Amino acid sequence: MKYTELSTLGEFGLIDLLTRNIKHKNNSTLKGVGDDAAVLDYHQKKILVSTDMLIQNIHFDLTYTPLKHLGYKSVAVNASDIYAMNGTPRQITVALAVSNYFSVENLEELYSGIYLACEHYGIDLVGGDTTSSKTGLCISITVLGEANEEDIIYRNTACENQLICVSGDLGAAYMGLQLLEREKVVFQGDKKVQPDFTGYEYILERQLKPEARKDIIELLREKNIRPTAMIDVSDGLASEIMHICKDSGIGCNIYEEKIPIDYQTFKMAEELNMNATVCALSGGEDYELLFTAPLDKYDLLTALPSISVIGHTCKASNGYQMTTRDGNTFELKAQGWTNFTTTEKNEEKKS
Amino acid sequence: MKYTELSTLGEFGLIDLLTRNIKHKNNSTLKGVGDDAAVLDYHQKKILVSTDMLIQNIHFDLTYTPLKHLGYKSVAVNASDIYAMNGTPRQITVALAVSNYFSVENLEELYSGIYLACEHYGIDLVGGDTTSSKTGLCISITVLGEANEEDIIYRNTACENQLICVSGDLGAAYMGLQLLEREKVVFQGDKKVQPDFTGYEYILERQLKPEARKDIIELLREKNIRPTAMIDVSDGLASEIMHICKDSGIGCNIYEEKIPIDYQTFKMAEELNMNATVCALSGGEDYELLFTAPLDKYDLLTALPSISVIGHTCKASNGYQMTTRDGNTFELKAQGWTNFTTTEKNEEKKS
Repeated sequence: MKYTELSTLGEFGLIDLLTRNIKHKNNSTLKGVGDDAAVLDYHQKKILVSTDMLIQNIHFDLTYTPLKHLGYKSVAVNASDIYAMNGTPRQITVALAVSNYFSVENLEELYSGIYLACEHYGIDLVGGDTTSSKTGLCISITVLGEANEEDIIYRNTACENQLICVSGDLGAAYMGLQLLEREKVVFQGDKKVQPDFTGYEYILERQLKPEARKDIIELLREKNIRPTAMIDVSDGLASEIMHICKDSGIGCNIYEEKIPIDYQTFKMAEELNMNATVCALSGGEDYELLFTAPLDKYDLLTALPSISVIGHTCKASNGYQMTTRDGNTFELKAQGWTNFTTTEKNEEKKS
Repeated sequence: MKYTELSTLGEFGLIDLLTRNIKHKNNSTLKGVGDDAAVLDYHQKKILVSTDMLIQNIHFDLTYTPLKHLGYKSVAVNASDIYAMNGTPRQITVALAVSNYFSVENLEELYSGIYLACEHYGIDLVGGDTTSSKTGLCISITVLGEANEEDIIYRNTACENQLICVSGDLGAAYMGLQLLEREKVVFQGDKKVQPDFTGYEYILERQLKPEARKDIIELLREKNIRPTAMIDVSDGLASEIMHICKDSGIGCNIYEEKIPIDYQTFKMAEELNMNATVCALSGGEDYELLFTAPLDKYDLLTALPSISVIGHTCKASNGYQMTTRDGNTFELKAQGWTNFTTTEKNEEKKS
């Protein structure tokens, strides 16, 4: 692959190169890249704003993360926050710090992933900042989205005796990460050995190229189901359920057997001598939607293959409970994304 | 000073601590920190968005930069982009990556500067992301502002035969940086020697605690002067003039003797055997406003002590010229913020 040093272009040349093919998709984008600020027009719609930062060797490892996938993922995780408010993402700004050892071609690769995700989610890239770093790659994306005020769904509006539902399946992204970390060690030990991912394509994709659940938002609208509270699952199911419950002043009971877990996730967990339920509860990076809904939507919701009803809300004094497969109950604990306590991402969730 | 490790709080605890005292100042802030996204309402106003990223040892050196100042500056430089569009900054999101060696107290110090700037510019902090880093501090701020469509001033709308004006004075922040770098070396050589900044308070303040020129925007409105194009001076006068001229398809002629330079800037430049005009042209970080205005505003503009008329625009074929004190002319060159080419910030601008 060609290797052009960043210094040959300079900051302005680089920005020109990376943004020269932008075509806006949204009427709300009046002016994108190229001035002190972008100019947007949301008319009477409300503005949703969210920011996520991805740091090399904390959130991603370039040993096994293709830059295009990383670009895609960094947009998807931001879009996910807007969908979790029941809104539509419209614009992003991308702030990037890169070491000198990255080439122009590396950044084009990263941006090709960013633009692919923008295409997929209907987002315009309208601004950003590109700077050098002494220490690897840092990507900070801010996403703006729109929603009618009456459509916005917050975390703190769940009530007692409602259904707790989650889209897709959980724990797969975390198992994908564990697999990549294992194969990385194998790969580093003997350069001739190629990593073997056969049969684990799904969990790898969940880790490397997650999708924001735009489709679920559309499905719920189509079925006329309005969640009473919603959040996206970025830090693991336990942490997110507790956010909804704490903020809404209620308790919950979920059922281990109802938590949707893919076959590959189970298989990988078994291979690594881990508990698949713990991975779903605390693994994170699933970017599924967790929401509460009125009890009378039970039949409608259980008929949808992409949604699982995993429990129900109850009064606050009950706490946050999970009923296990063998009928025991225990208190949920939020581990969150405790990246201040350990140095390796893969060590965080093992404890 | 107390030193509490970040790990004692965890991410959620840290966010709670740093955001617990937020009181919104703007009616447009419907929901701030605490959900998947903030919710804003700009009614019929247009939305302005801009992002700036500050990286340790590229944009700042913690040896001599107090964290509170750094927090203030990181908000001010973002606000500056909104003023440069003739808008009003309203909200920011703050994404932060910090090493484990930072303490809770360090981050409180940084945030005290962020909040002080928010107070000064009337901005609400509405969201963010806090993560760990293996390699120092990275601050990425996105600012949102509002403006009526007819009030927005772009870079590309200057015409031939208009005045070129700049607020305040130039080159001081760069000279402040040079002084800090010099004293840092002295300081590191002999721990008993204290850096001596007497007589250089102004250039230090320009480097460590720059202000966005909200006052100039207000002044121009009050005097009924509408710039035809505007940009803020972050990369040095030459680079910014060329942005306006290139984007507007015109040329320019500026006069060296008209460039506003403070006495301390001249004195420091002399001490360091540098040319003060070169510092103004290529130093950067001034955060002054550079704008073009109709010729008939000349008397009005020259009567304002905080604004200097430094030249005029002309047809594109004339190029970008500066007439020196001795009557020679030469072609302006944009150095920009070429932080991909050298490793030390203070080396960048010397060439």
